[in-house]
Amino acid sequence: MKKPIRVTLTGPAGNIGYATVFRIAAGEMFGPDQPVILSLLEIPPTLPVLHGVGMELEDCAYPLLHDLVLTDDPAVGFKDADYAMLIGAKPRGKGMERKDLITENAKIFSAQGKAINDHASGDVRVLIVGNPANTNALIAAANAPDLDARQFTAMTRLDHNLAMGQLANKTNSLVGDIKRMTVWGNHSLTQYPDIGNCLVDGTPAYDLVSRDWAMDEMVPRVQKRGAEVIEARGSSSAASAGDAAIDHVRDWALGTPEGDWVSMSIPSDGSYGISEGIVYSFPVTVKDGEYEIVQGLELDDNDIARMKASEAELLEERAMIEDLLS
Amino acid sequence: MKKPIRVTLTGPAGNIGYATVFRIAAGEMFGPDQPVILSLLEIPPTLPVLHGVGMELEDCAYPLLHDLVLTDDPAVGFKDADYAMLIGAKPRGKGMERKDLITENAKIFSAQGKAINDHASGDVRVLIVGNPANTNALIAAANAPDLDARQFTAMTRLDHNLAMGQLANKTNSLVGDIKRMTVWGNHSLTQYPDIGNCLVDGTPAYDLVSRDWAMDEMVPRVQKRGAEVIEARGSSSAASAGDAAIDHVRDWALGTPEGDWVSMSIPSDGSYGISEGIVYSFPVTVKDGEYEIVQGLELDDNDIARMKASEAELLEERAMIEDLLS
Repeated sequence: MKKPIRVTLTGPAGNIGYATVFRIAAGEMFGPDQPVILSLLEIPPTLPVLHGVGMELEDCAYPLLHDLVLTDDPAVGFKDADYAMLIGAKPRGKGMERKDLITENAKIFSAQGKAINDHASGDVRVLIVGNPANTNALIAAANAPDLDARQFTAMTRLDHNLAMGQLANKTNSLVGDIKRMTVWGNHSLTQYPDIGNCLVDGTPAYDLVSRDWAMDEMVPRVQKRGAEVIEARGSSSAASAGDAAIDHVRDWALGTPEGDWVSMSIPSDGSYGISEGIVYSFPVTVKDGEYEIVQGLELDDNDIARMKASEAELLEERAMIEDLLS
Repeated sequence: MKKPIRVTLTGPAGNIGYATVFRIAAGEMFGPDQPVILSLLEIPPTLPVLHGVGMELEDCAYPLLHDLVLTDDPAVGFKDADYAMLIGAKPRGKGMERKDLITENAKIFSAQGKAINDHASGDVRVLIVGNPANTNALIAAANAPDLDARQFTAMTRLDHNLAMGQLANKTNSLVGDIKRMTVWGNHSLTQYPDIGNCLVDGTPAYDLVSRDWAMDEMVPRVQKRGAEVIEARGSSSAASAGDAAIDHVRDWALGTPEGDWVSMSIPSDGSYGISEGIVYSFPVTVKDGEYEIVQGLELDDNDIARMKASEAELLEERAMIEDLLS
């Protein structure tokens, strides 16, 4: 039998966490023959709820779930973690400025970066879901001096997936027939979902849909989909966010299919002229657990302007939390 | 590519439904190469929330989800269904007597039985999750004269799974090493989780744990686990119930492993002296989509007394809704 993979989640008792942990235990992230150990880290006031989640996990009798740790101690929670999925974050409170949101979360994620540095496996792979995810990933990495910054990533996979859904709907095709979607930039309103390289059942997307539709309808809809779901459901996306988190980690662990790629927010290496160091969403392929930016994509002035706008936002976010980076 | 399987769910916007539909779309119920069509049936006031769930499903870009129907019309919702998972039910309101709960739900499930009879596939397989599940299954079947009553089942798989979890904990073993768990009776406080035939890594359970532990600790804990989870989480079991529903349908569709069995509530054929017709939980094996009660298990007086108590409760429930059965 394979050695279990140890996965640490923060915020497991929240809505996204609750939609995620059962699927990991069921084998959806690493496959049906890979045992897992779940280490669930919550804040002290949420421990009773976490124990309820723990009971339900036990009640599912998952053959692959070899152990379960429930804790509010980061030293225990991150111990020997092979993967860390940081879902919990401080939400934007009433009257809270954007700068406050960013600095409050920067404190949380700098502490988690340190704890991961000190307690997790040296090969740990980290996905940040909690917003502002890209800048949270930047600050967590900066506080983990013994690890490579490339071990810290942020999630733009939900944006990627929902752009796939929009394009499938518009072209009346199956999402399984769509390849090479790209989301550039920050997981925010400045993100740029780019269908310029998409193939729909082998046909370039722009042979099937107009640029006007993409720029005036699809892009804004993807950017604002979160608000649309809240309006309908009365609460924010949970299952789709958890699903995207599982997709992100699964593809990072098991690789991307030949001829296709996914979108991941990763530390920029300067590719496509994006400032080095900021955590920016790129199209990537993954092989043997290592991601690589897809190079050489053609971009026009409109693409570049949108990519630069999202870069500018990330540089501004970085400036706000500069003091926590060193 | 395989022909899609059409699955109808009621109550998809509720907590259990929400924990279930994404996993079905991801391929967890019928496997990674089997496309599905989800038909989600809600009551009119819940349609806006259902549309939010629909958006999130679209946003997950599931390659296996070939179509999605959102409706409040049973004739549309059940049309051509291969599987129907009836999760929605009327919960027990304040000051509501047990008899009221049973008769109110009997009205809902008699209407659904008729709609399934008239619109679903002739081979439809129905799982009732909404409580009182066993009697709801009885009444749905009675109102579907063109179908075989054996096509209507109720869920005792959560009880089965959580008894597995309790025994694994107690024996410090993995749930994957436990075989032949049985839950007898009604999905209620009278149910009887019976470890008398369980093997733990090949060893009879009663060689490892005492009968006192089973009767005085495990059985009451399984019977009352729902209340324990509510107490901890602040809301009732959702993910574990959805998980058990997927297990139930998956095993019914794909079969049980050689040498093991599962618990399903099915119309009694008189086996083990249980009155014919009531929907009662038995140990069953499944092959080629057909379930069969495991015969010849040895039972002692204690086992029989407990099985009879649960049978008595089901007969009493049937008497309460007699007028809706014909």
